[in-house]
Amino acid sequence: MSVILAADIGGTTCKLGIFDKHLQLLEKWQVNTDIANNGENILTDIHESFMAKEREVGFSVRESLGAGIGAPGPVNFKDGVLNGGINLNWEGRIPIASRFEKLSGVSTIVDNDANLAALGEQSKGAGHGHADAAMLTLGTGVGGGIVSDGMLIHGFGGAAGEIGHIMVDFKQRFSCNCGKKGCLETVASATGIVNIAEFKHRHENIETKLADQIEHGTITSKTLMEAAEEGDALAVSTVNEASHYIAIAISSISAVTNPGYIILGGGVSAAGQFLIDRIEKYYRPVTFPPASEGVEIVTAELGNDAGMYGAAKLVKQYLIQ
Amino acid sequence: MSVILAADIGGTTCKLGIFDKHLQLLEKWQVNTDIANNGENILTDIHESFMAKEREVGFSVRESLGAGIGAPGPVNFKDGVLNGGINLNWEGRIPIASRFEKLSGVSTIVDNDANLAALGEQSKGAGHGHADAAMLTLGTGVGGGIVSDGMLIHGFGGAAGEIGHIMVDFKQRFSCNCGKKGCLETVASATGIVNIAEFKHRHENIETKLADQIEHGTITSKTLMEAAEEGDALAVSTVNEASHYIAIAISSISAVTNPGYIILGGGVSAAGQFLIDRIEKYYRPVTFPPASEGVEIVTAELGNDAGMYGAAKLVKQYLIQ
Repeated sequence: MSVILAADIGGTTCKLGIFDKHLQLLEKWQVNTDIANNGENILTDIHESFMAKEREVGFSVRESLGAGIGAPGPVNFKDGVLNGGINLNWEGRIPIASRFEKLSGVSTIVDNDANLAALGEQSKGAGHGHADAAMLTLGTGVGGGIVSDGMLIHGFGGAAGEIGHIMVDFKQRFSCNCGKKGCLETVASATGIVNIAEFKHRHENIETKLADQIEHGTITSKTLMEAAEEGDALAVSTVNEASHYIAIAISSISAVTNPGYIILGGGVSAAGQFLIDRIEKYYRPVTFPPASEGVEIVTAELGNDAGMYGAAKLVKQYLIQ
Repeated sequence: MSVILAADIGGTTCKLGIFDKHLQLLEKWQVNTDIANNGENILTDIHESFMAKEREVGFSVRESLGAGIGAPGPVNFKDGVLNGGINLNWEGRIPIASRFEKLSGVSTIVDNDANLAALGEQSKGAGHGHADAAMLTLGTGVGGGIVSDGMLIHGFGGAAGEIGHIMVDFKQRFSCNCGKKGCLETVASATGIVNIAEFKHRHENIETKLADQIEHGTITSKTLMEAAEEGDALAVSTVNEASHYIAIAISSISAVTNPGYIILGGGVSAAGQFLIDRIEKYYRPVTFPPASEGVEIVTAELGNDAGMYGAAKLVKQYLIQ
C-alpha cells in the first residue's frame, strides 16, 4: 500500500501519522523529541519510528508517496530549511527536507507547524474543505496560517500567517517576544490575557476572586477563563477586552484575504462559544460588510492532529501527481 | 497573429489594449464609457472598438487567445458577474463575462479593477514580477489587491484586497462609504487626508496657508500635498498622520500575506518619495521583523494602464494553456 508519511515536530513530542492518498488517517502515534546534542537525533528517531511501524501496519517507508514534516519556527518552504528551531535546540539553518530524504529515500516537504495546522483544519477539520480559511492558535503564543484557494500562503520571506504579530493594542502596553509592543500575542495568548487581567487589576481595582489569584500569584490563563465563565467581573472584563483585540485582527485578515472560516485553536480557545460570542460582537461592527458576510468563526476540531493532517495534505498538493 | 484583448472599464472611459502572449502591449486606446440607458451600450461599444481595430493592427478578434475585463465594483471571479456597478449605472447583477463572450465569441475572464491594477503592477510594473506583492490605490477611495505566489487572492466572497476598509483609526472619527467608521479610506484617500486636515484645523488651531484654504473651502488633496512639500506645518502634520495610518494597514498586510513589494498608486501617491519616507518611518517599528525584512515600498509605474496589464495577465494565467 502506498501511503503518506506525516510528522509534526514539537518541543516535547513528535506526532507521527500514516495517511492513505485520500488523506484518511490509517495510524497515529508519537515519540519523544530528544533535544539533547543539539537535537541531532530528532530526524533519525522519526525515521526509525516509521521503519518500526512498517511491518506492523503493512506499508513500505521507502515506497511511500512522500513525507510531510511540520517544524516549530521559520521554515523556507521552497528548500525545506528551518532557520532557528529554538525549542528543539537546533541552531542556525537545519535542512530538514534534504536530511530526511537522505535518511528515508522519500521526497519530503517541510512547513511551519502553525501553517500546517491551518491547512489541516481547513482541509479536514473545522474548515470543512472550504477553499478560504484562516486559523489562529491562541496558545502560549499566537500562531496562525492563511489558506487561500486551498493553498497555504507563504509570502515573500515565509512570514505570511504571522497573525500573532498584527498590532492591535495601540496603547502598546506589553512587550512581545518579537521585540515589538502591541502585538495580538501580547493580549490574546495565554500570557496575553493574564497581562490584561493584571493591568486591569492595577488600574481598575475590581475586587474579585481573580484579583485574589493575581495578588497570590496563582493566576493562569486557565483559572482566568474559568473565572470568566463563572461570571467573575474582572475575568469577564478581561475576556471582553481580549475578544475585542482578536476581533480587530480578524477584521484586518478579512479585508486582506477574506477567509470564509476563521478557525480558533489553542488553549485559550477551549472556552469555545463563550469566547466566540464575544469576538462576534466586536467583529461584525468593525468589518467591511462584504468581507464578513457569511463568515463563520469556529473552534478547531483536530486538536493536536491538525499539523499531521496539514503535512499529509501538503504532500498530496505538491508531491503526488 | 494571436493576441489577448484587455479592457479596463471606468466611469468615464474604457481603456482598451491588445497584447501578445508574452504580455507585450501592441496597441492601446480608449473609448468613452456610455452610461446612458443603464449602461447597456458599454460592452457592445468595447466589442465594436476592438472590431474596428482588427484590420488596422492586423489581428482577429474572434481568433484571439482570450479577453480580460476589469470592472469597478464587486466581481464574482468564478462566473464573471459584477454585482452592482454604481459608477456605470449598471443595476443588479451584470454577467459581463458571458455577455462579452456572446458578442465576441472569445473566452472572457473578469475581475475587479483594483485587483487587476495590482496584478498588472506586480507582473509588469513596480513589482518587477516578484511573486508576492500588495497594491494600495490611494485615490478618491482606497482600493487594493493582493498577489500571492503570482496569483490574485479573491477570498470567500471576492472581498480580498479591500485594503481601504482595514480599520486603522481607532478613534473612528470619520464615516466611510461602506457604512463603518475608522477605515483606512477615511484617513488616506483624497477625501481622507482632507478629513484629517480639517479635523486638525478645528482642534489644534495651526495658522497656516492650508488653514486659510480650509476656511475658504478651497482645500483639495492636491493643494494639501503641495503645501506639505512646501513645509506648511498643518499640511506636514496631516501627511504624517495619514502616513501613520497607511503604515498600520501595511503592517497588518505584512503579517497576513508578507508581500515583498508594497506598491502605492492613485493621486495621493503622486507625492512619491516624500510620502514613502514618512510611511517607512512608521512601518518598520510596528511590523513583525521577519515580515518587513527586505520589503520595499514603491510607487506604481504603469499609471492608468495597470488594469489592462492585469487583465491581459489574467487571460494568460487562466485561459491560455
